Parts: sequence; C-alpha cells; structure tokens
Amino acid sequence: MAEEIIAGRNAVLEALASKRPVNKVYIRNGVHGGSIDRLIAAAREAAVPVEFVQEEKLDKLAEGVRHQGVAALAAPVAFHTLEEILEQAYEKTDKPFLLLLDELQDPQNVGALIRSADAAGAHGVLLPKRRSCPLNMTVAKISAGAVNYVPVVQIGNIAQTLRSLKKQGFWVVGADMDGERLHFEADLDRPVVLVIGAEGKGLGRLVRENCDMLVRIPMQGGVNSLNASAAGAILMYEVVRQRMLKV
Amino acid sequence: MAEEIIAGRNAVLEALASKRPVNKVYIRNGVHGGSIDRLIAAAREAAVPVEFVQEEKLDKLAEGVRHQGVAALAAPVAFHTLEEILEQAYEKTDKPFLLLLDELQDPQNVGALIRSADAAGAHGVLLPKRRSCPLNMTVAKISAGAVNYVPVVQIGNIAQTLRSLKKQGFWVVGADMDGERLHFEADLDRPVVLVIGAEGKGLGRLVRENCDMLVRIPMQGGVNSLNASAAGAILMYEVVRQRMLKV
Repeated sequence: MAEEIIAGRNAVLEALASKRPVNKVYIRNGVHGGSIDRLIAAAREAAVPVEFVQEEKLDKLAEGVRHQGVAALAAPVAFHTLEEILEQAYEKTDKPFLLLLDELQDPQNVGALIRSADAAGAHGVLLPKRRSCPLNMTVAKISAGAVNYVPVVQIGNIAQTLRSLKKQGFWVVGADMDGERLHFEADLDRPVVLVIGAEGKGLGRLVRENCDMLVRIPMQGGVNSLNASAAGAILMYEVVRQRMLKV
Repeated sequence: MAEEIIAGRNAVLEALASKRPVNKVYIRNGVHGGSIDRLIAAAREAAVPVEFVQEEKLDKLAEGVRHQGVAALAAPVAFHTLEEILEQAYEKTDKPFLLLLDELQDPQNVGALIRSADAAGAHGVLLPKRRSCPLNMTVAKISAGAVNYVPVVQIGNIAQTLRSLKKQGFWVVGADMDGERLHFEADLDRPVVLVIGAEGKGLGRLVRENCDMLVRIPMQGGVNSLNASAAGAILMYEVVRQRMLKV
C-alpha cells in the first residue's frame, strides 16, 4: 500500500477533519487566506506537522493534480481503534497481548517492531500520535508488510490509554534498565501491554508511573542497553514462550 | 575507532599481506603495471573487493597523502583469532557461547547483532570473510560501540569452522524456519554456536548440514519470517535465560 498524496485545499482539509491518518501537510511559502489558516489550525488539532515548501516541491508531490499551494501525505495503512482491536482479540483469546511504543523516533525500529509484533502474534501495536515516528512508507517497508496484518492504533494520551487498559484488566509491563525483575521472571501469561521506550531515553516518567511492573533484560556486556527493536523482540517472544509452554 | 584510509601502493600491499582487516581496495581507472597486478592478486587472495575509481575519488580519500593511484579502507576494529577468543572464553566459563553470521549483507543487521551479542554476553561473533557485509563504520556505529567489547573473528570457510568447533565440543544450533524444535525447547546451556542466516535466504546448504540442530522461532502472524537481527536477539536471550535460571 503506497503512501498517498492528497492535493488541494479542500481535499486536505477533509482528510484532516475525517481523522484519516495524515503524516504531513505541505503548504507553499507565502500563500495566505482564510482556508490556509483553517488548514493550519486543523493540522495542529490533529497533531500533524506542517512544512512550508517551494512551488516546485508541491508540483512534484502533486504529480499534475491542481494543488492550490497545499498537499498532504496520508499514512500507507488504515489505523484501527483500540475498541476494534480489543473486540477482535477477545474473539480469539482471553489474554490479549499488545505492544505500546513510547515516542520512538526511528522508522527502522518502528518497522522492525511491527514486524516482530506480527510474528509474535500480538493483537495490536499502539503508536502515540505525538512525538513519535509516523506510520510512513519507511516503516511499512521495514515491517516487510506486517503493517497489513497486525492492527496499528494511533493513540492520543499514552498515560490515559494505559489507565483505561488497566481498568479493563490489562497488566502494563514496561522495559526498563532499572526494572526490579528480570524479563523472564515476570508472569506474562495474562492480558498484557508491553511498553518499549524511546531510543536513548527509555520510558517517559508518566508512562513509567503507569506501569504495573518494570522488567529488566539482563545486560552482560560493555554497552549497557539494547536497541529498542531487539529489546521488543526479546520481550514479545518471552510472552510467546510462556504462553506456548502453558498450552 | 575510525575506519582507516591506507594510501600508496606499498602501504596497501603490506596491509593485504599482513592479514590486517581491509574492507576495500580502490585503484585509479587506467593505471597499469606489475605492482598493480600484484595488488589485485593480493586483494583477490584476501577476498577483498576492488573498485576502480576516478582520480578525484582517490584524492578525496587520501586527504593529501600521495596515493600513487591506490588506496584501501581498513576495518575500524582489530579482528581476533578463534583461538584467542576461545582461550579468553574458557577462562570465564566451561560453556562458551558464540554467534556466527552466515553471509549477512545488511550492515544494520550486522551492527545490531553485534550489539545484542555484547549485551547477551556472547564470547565472540564469527563473521565470514566472503559474501558478508564487512566490519565497516556503519556496522561499528549501529553496534553502539559494541564492536569494541565483543571480539569479532573473521573466518574463511564457514563449514570448516563449524566442523572444527564441533570437534572441540561445541553444539551448532542454526535458526531455520523449518527447524524441528522450537527455540526454547533446545538445551542451550552448553558450549554453543548460534548460526543466523542471511536476510531473505536463510542458512546456506553446507551450513545447515553442519548444524547439530535446527531451531524454529514460532511465527504467529501474516509475515512468515523475522528480521535477522530480531531472530538473533531472541535466540541469544534464550541462551541467557537458560543459563541464568540454572545458576
């Protein structure tokens, strides 16, 4: 599925209003007017970045379509709602298994994590709307097409989402270098959300506070952390191991 | 540690003869002569790729050093010998744990695997000389510096290396989609070499034939394989889990 270009003021405004996943809005340098102000406001509301560009860039993006100084890049896949994926998950299991990516920036990591989540049979990947790598073509490509299999949910407030999942019986497990328990000593054979922190900075404070448990992957070498996608793969496959052993 | 440029015919010939790890030899288009023939033969002998380039490229590489139409790129870290790392490993454990990368092409994967190998406490990473991504600056960078901690051995013939390790009591475990056993059901608490195959094509035939066991990481999603670096991280941390549980 290709990343789609939307060209023209109304088309972009509609896309933003419809909550369709838009990764970026392009506006020609120097254009003004009420519809441009509304566009910028709508992009801000939807937490979509706006880039001001030259006419030539827009012409190239729009590929002949009349763009009126405005274009946007839509996500290569459709997003799902949390309710949808939980409903689907509960049809298959009484212990859904989700992955939440806490403000990851690197599309390589996000793509690799979605691929591993698919392989591990996760029921969904939660991707925050703000301060995270968007679900773009690089992510889709690195995921080796897994974006078409494992449902991705775009979430607004991470802490709020975690609180809501906890109320529904989920156990929130964060990966943290200072975690009190080794990852393979945690009981992951229950409804679980694994939370992976951003490269270099780990879990955000509010996110940590909303974890039921912090688990630590033991580090035995000279570098004191794993790549986010390696850490995620290890944790997700610990879930798989525990569940397959209990069958 | 930076990737080092070696400039000049004799310097490059010496580097190749000394078995110093050289990743690439550059020769100016159109230069001829006995020393160039010897250089090309030495590069072929050492399985180092040769690229024919324009004068400007060489000038830029050599940064003012007189290059005589020849330059080479040396690996950013020193290689170790298999004997060295086994000796070091046996000082710490009676169950050394090695990782062998079977013709991996992607420097991102090689770097990530070296980082995970360091974190998992592997005693060495074996990297084939031929048809593999060389240990270059990209690999060193992606490894987050782990190339300075976990010793890397450049090996010639993979099958021969595996046979020699088996004679020394190692158990050779290959990751394979058709493996007869799940990865967490294999006993990895013994001297072990984990073998990870190339992206897309998996283990080579000869390599498979030299494995004592093929293990399968269970695939539960729509995409039927994991990224090589995710698969390696999962397998290496299964070794860690089994060993920590037994302590």
